Amino acid sequence: MNTFGYALRLSTFGESHGEYIGGVLDGLPSNLQINLDKIQEDIKRRGGGRSAYVTPRKESDICEIISGVFEGKTTGTPLAFIIKNTHQRSQDYSHIKDIFRPSHADFTYFHKYGNVDYRGGGRASARESLVRVVASSIIKPLLKDIEVESGVLGVGGILGSEVDFSYARESEIFALDRGVEEAQKECITLARESGDSVGGVVMLRARGDLLGLGEPLYYKLDAEIARAMMGINGVKAVEIGEGVNASNLKGSQYNDVMSENGFLSNHSGGILGGIANGEEILVKIHFKPTPSIALPQKSLDKEGRERVIEIRGRHDPCIAIRGSVVSEAMMNLVLADMILARSKR
Amino acid sequence: MNTFGYALRLSTFGESHGEYIGGVLDGLPSNLQINLDKIQEDIKRRGGGRSAYVTPRKESDICEIISGVFEGKTTGTPLAFIIKNTHQRSQDYSHIKDIFRPSHADFTYFHKYGNVDYRGGGRASARESLVRVVASSIIKPLLKDIEVESGVLGVGGILGSEVDFSYARESEIFALDRGVEEAQKECITLARESGDSVGGVVMLRARGDLLGLGEPLYYKLDAEIARAMMGINGVKAVEIGEGVNASNLKGSQYNDVMSENGFLSNHSGGILGGIANGEEILVKIHFKPTPSIALPQKSLDKEGRERVIEIRGRHDPCIAIRGSVVSEAMMNLVLADMILARSKR
Amino acid sequence: MNTFGYALRLSTFGESHGEYIGGVLDGLPSNLQINLDKIQEDIKRRGGGRSAYVTPRKESDICEIISGVFEGKTTGTPLAFIIKNTHQRSQDYSHIKDIFRPSHADFTYFHKYGNVDYRGGGRASARESLVRVVASSIIKPLLKDIEVESGVLGVGGILGSEVDFSYARESEIFALDRGVEEAQKECITLARESGDSVGGVVMLRARGDLLGLGEPLYYKLDAEIARAMMGINGVKAVEIGEGVNASNLKGSQYNDVMSENGFLSNHSGGILGGIANGEEILVKIHFKPTPSIALPQKSLDKEGRERVIEIRGRHDPCIAIRGSVVSEAMMNLVLADMILARSKR
Amino acid sequence: MNTFGYALRLSTFGESHGEYIGGVLDGLPSNLQINLDKIQEDIKRRGGGRSAYVTPRKESDICEIISGVFEGKTTGTPLAFIIKNTHQRSQDYSHIKDIFRPSHADFTYFHKYGNVDYRGGGRASARESLVRVVASSIIKPLLKDIEVESGVLGVGGILGSEVDFSYARESEIFALDRGVEEAQKECITLARESGDSVGGVVMLRARGDLLGLGEPLYYKLDAEIARAMMGINGVKAVEIGEGVNASNLKGSQYNDVMSENGFLSNHSGGILGGIANGEEILVKIHFKPTPSIALPQKSLDKEGRERVIEIRGRHDPCIAIRGSVVSEAMMNLVLADMILARSKR
Repeated sequence: MNTFGYALRLSTFGESHGEYIGGVLDGLPSNLQINLDKIQEDIKRRGGGRSAYVTPRKESDICEIISGVFEGKTTGTPLAFIIKNTHQRSQDYSHIKDIFRPSHADFTYFHKYGNVDYRGGGRASARESLVRVVASSIIKPLLKDIEVESGVLGVGGILGSEVDFSYARESEIFALDRGVEEAQKECITLARESGDSVGGVVMLRARGDLLGLGEPLYYKLDAEIARAMMGINGVKAVEIGEGVNASNLKGSQYNDVMSENGFLSNHSGGILGGIANGEEILVKIHFKPTPSIALPQKSLDKEGRERVIEIRGRHDPCIAIRGSVVSEAMMNLVLADMILARSKR
Repeated sequence: MNTFGYALRLSTFGESHGEYIGGVLDGLPSNLQINLDKIQEDIKRRGGGRSAYVTPRKESDICEIISGVFEGKTTGTPLAFIIKNTHQRSQDYSHIKDIFRPSHADFTYFHKYGNVDYRGGGRASARESLVRVVASSIIKPLLKDIEVESGVLGVGGILGSEVDFSYARESEIFALDRGVEEAQKECITLARESGDSVGGVVMLRARGDLLGLGEPLYYKLDAEIARAMMGINGVKAVEIGEGVNASNLKGSQYNDVMSENGFLSNHSGGILGGIANGEEILVKIHFKPTPSIALPQKSLDKEGRERVIEIRGRHDPCIAIRGSVVSEAMMNLVLADMILARSKR
Repeated sequence: MNTFGYALRLSTFGESHGEYIGGVLDGLPSNLQINLDKIQEDIKRRGGGRSAYVTPRKESDICEIISGVFEGKTTGTPLAFIIKNTHQRSQDYSHIKDIFRPSHADFTYFHKYGNVDYRGGGRASARESLVRVVASSIIKPLLKDIEVESGVLGVGGILGSEVDFSYARESEIFALDRGVEEAQKECITLARESGDSVGGVVMLRARGDLLGLGEPLYYKLDAEIARAMMGINGVKAVEIGEGVNASNLKGSQYNDVMSENGFLSNHSGGILGGIANGEEILVKIHFKPTPSIALPQKSLDKEGRERVIEIRGRHDPCIAIRGSVVSEAMMNLVLADMILARSKR
Repeated sequence: MNTFGYALRLSTFGESHGEYIGGVLDGLPSNLQINLDKIQEDIKRRGGGRSAYVTPRKESDICEIISGVFEGKTTGTPLAFIIKNTHQRSQDYSHIKDIFRPSHADFTYFHKYGNVDYRGGGRASARESLVRVVASSIIKPLLKDIEVESGVLGVGGILGSEVDFSYARESEIFALDRGVEEAQKECITLARESGDSVGGVVMLRARGDLLGLGEPLYYKLDAEIARAMMGINGVKAVEIGEGVNASNLKGSQYNDVMSENGFLSNHSGGILGGIANGEEILVKIHFKPTPSIALPQKSLDKEGRERVIEIRGRHDPCIAIRGSVVSEAMMNLVLADMILARSKR
């Protein structure tokens, strides 16, 4: 259950405070070029310590590929990689080790597995998303001309109206709309300074040779995107194309009619019947606020006694920011899998 | 790719205008009681012809179980069932057989498979959802005390504020809020009479012995629900718990804190870290308007020529209504699978 | 667990005395030509009633394709087919319904599932192999120039030394060596007349564009062949290439050395490291004698009491004969799956 | 394709001359005790350097568990482990790097993947079997009272008639029959001294609470054993119970009849209809001679030119000996998977 994908399978392992986290990519074609610099760049993009708007934890993570590559190219055998966990500060957690952190997975892991690795969330930690980013970086050449971009549309209820993916790459908060960027930054700063956190909205776009990707009826492209995104820590809603608003419209407003120049609108967000129609794939992903906040909160300990918890540590005030990088990685993985799984005709 | 589930696998087959549709359930425990009357009741609930708000097609579908049951009980071998397609009117489609119906899967199926079964959508038809409803009916005993309920919250932008699942069962449009029911009905009538259609919002609730269901990290309960729901025809957005609104909140507003009486709120919608926490699972599903409308629409034919299409036939004016029954069935299937897949400890 | 194959998946269902048996093929490319006559021909080849050496049961089975085919070609959606069970004589079984037939699956099914369909073995019956033969017939065009042939090498210890696959096709007992055919027939006749049965050895050969098929390390071609063959009812041993005798040889005797003309021997039976090397794939499959014999045998009933059982009915005196057709079908299915699963480079 | 098992999944990675080999176990129950000493003991049993009858390579392999274990117990998350490759002598291979070693996988890997890791076989090396032995050691507690034992029955055609598994554990060549042990040792010595190698036969026995294991029709216990064994490097035949000899017998000789004391014979080798019947599971596995021999052999290089090759290095003269440990590990893995996959009733 720790494997993602069908034709291209990523199996991940590791806990936030274990010795290593890592992954195994199986199903990779042979003779794919591996670019370690590009991997480190992508790691850095997901990383903390870049600005005042993300965690100050500056994890100097190094990805070590330990199999599946010979003389710089994939061999067709499983590509395994590991990343040493070096920046854990387990002591940050010792004083709260017996208390369930509100809206964290401590409670459910404890009840499901009968144990809980209290050090930073263990397996449930967002640190595992680093493995997804590395895998995405490795498989990107499979996407050929397909380009996936991401950015932050909303922060704490402040929603952008412009969508500029190239600007987002430059922005400290990956903002898609520079018109609201300052207000969004201020919102984050305010939350952080008051020991609180804020939610956010991420937007994804995929463009390129997409027509035909998706394997209905139970491996539809939109269903797999929804699964991949909802599986990211903190995501509570996924919209494709017109999304939530589709339920407000009439058929005559919603339908994407066609002329000889192709589709005249894209309410579908690029997917019809679970298969990409060649238009841009547009996805919105809604992140809850970071659950770790410094403000005192009521909770229970493992014995069921009421406790008050104040969560220290160096947490992101808004997980949507770094979450946008993870969403982009998952989209890359979904599309690469669909490319390799594509049915014959 | 036509199989749903991991421990309990439903493989479906059939096209809307083929001879049969059907499914195979594999992984069923032996000695489960089969109740054919209950299956027919569930078929009827999904069916048309019940009111002025759904398709007038009254499919008198009979589910025939052809294997896996001996003397009224499952044997542990694959349970296969077939349903004859009796109410097809292929002639409804002959005049449009070469034109891509807007926002239908004709276009993508044609480009993906190099052929298209023009009769009512073929495999992409919502008729396949009948198989899901039958399967859900068969596996329901596996859920034991878990109860899944569904209803329609919004129609064409008219959103209910009350949520009454027992009322929904009685309502002709499965309305959750009787306060807006009449307005919603009128909205549907208006759309139908003008040859148009409307979108809608479905709400699901699961209650009971849920704690511990879900298999992180890549078989999380919320991710699988998102996948199951987004895979239903016409769904464009899925929200869990606070959903879209989670992105507007602060951590101090969102977090579900606990007292000795348990959780004091349920913004999480019953799932933490991909595992059910025992609270109610709450899901919102947004359906686009029915793509088949009688109003003239621009489109292309298979030769790429511009055409105008008017889609006759007996279509639902609002697919969310019958879609709510399908959503409920998919939730049952997801939960039953999670129960059987549950990891040991 | 009732699905075979990875890229091309055959899910089968049905019991010997249920209403239908059938299968669903998923992963089939679209636009594959379907030849119903060829399917019926293959059904007949597996069937009984052809000679004195197989069961006199002449099952006039008709394969009905109920989905996945439109205008004579596959559509890329699941191809489902059903075959009505018409020749069951359940009364043959009523007098032994509570007794475990020796070396049958009654005992294990009863203990595993807590029930047993006593009518002819239920799901465990060799009748299910008909579904495999139909599936093989449907997918054969995927093999292109690859040719799979089968025949009977040994019967009750009488082993052929010549291997003539084209002769086997003509022979009433699919004998590979006409020099021993009469002796083998006599052996079968003797067994049948004395209410007994005999074991046999089947040989398979695959030739053609095989180089590169097989996906190590856990989807090796030889491992999958072994699995497919050992999964056929009554098979107790599988040999590839030199097989059992490999353990008697020295490396200098066994190794297949090469000259510019290619391999100078084929002890490997066409597979190296789990991947086809392009030489003939050679497999030997050892079938036990038919467990259903008319001679009185000691057994137990479901209450654990000692009983004597005499199994009437119209059983094959040597299951290896019709088993050879099933083996050939399974080889076709394995190779087609490997072709579609073939990793990219 | 590098994952073994359904409910308990072992994914392996690594090449013989890469930096690490390792594996990920997913599906492990939580709170399983981990015994590192036991793991090292099992590693040693598989290892070389113990006697004159196996490779002199004494790999001092240390298994490092890098995830999935907290405070000495499994957490229910994926257990990953790595083993550093320390004893490679790549220079042993440089002079033959362009020549296909006869009966090795070089030829097929080169043609399949378009590249070949010439250093000791890369992924195809038997070194990967170390990962299987470690995994087996970790999961053994899942087998509870089930005991799996192995030994060497035959070497180079010298076949034992007695089967003494406890003696085998002591024997330098894991001999099952001390009566032929000296002759078998001599056979190995002779082969090694003459730069040659010999084949061998391994026998496995499983005893204990086996009744009901196996998931027909396409996850039968015997089929999965055949697959697991045939997938081990060098295996060319697998027999279950009476095996090859079953094809020589009559039904009246072969059938395992029952009295109140249970089965009166075990020709079936403990499996009926793909399900364990509770008797001993008996398997014979035939290994070819080690393909790496020092004697000069004809071969081709990658350019297709004829070459003569003499393979130096420190190879096992008879792979069946260490292969018996690997077979035992695979049996453990198959049974543990079947235990966790066991269908409900």
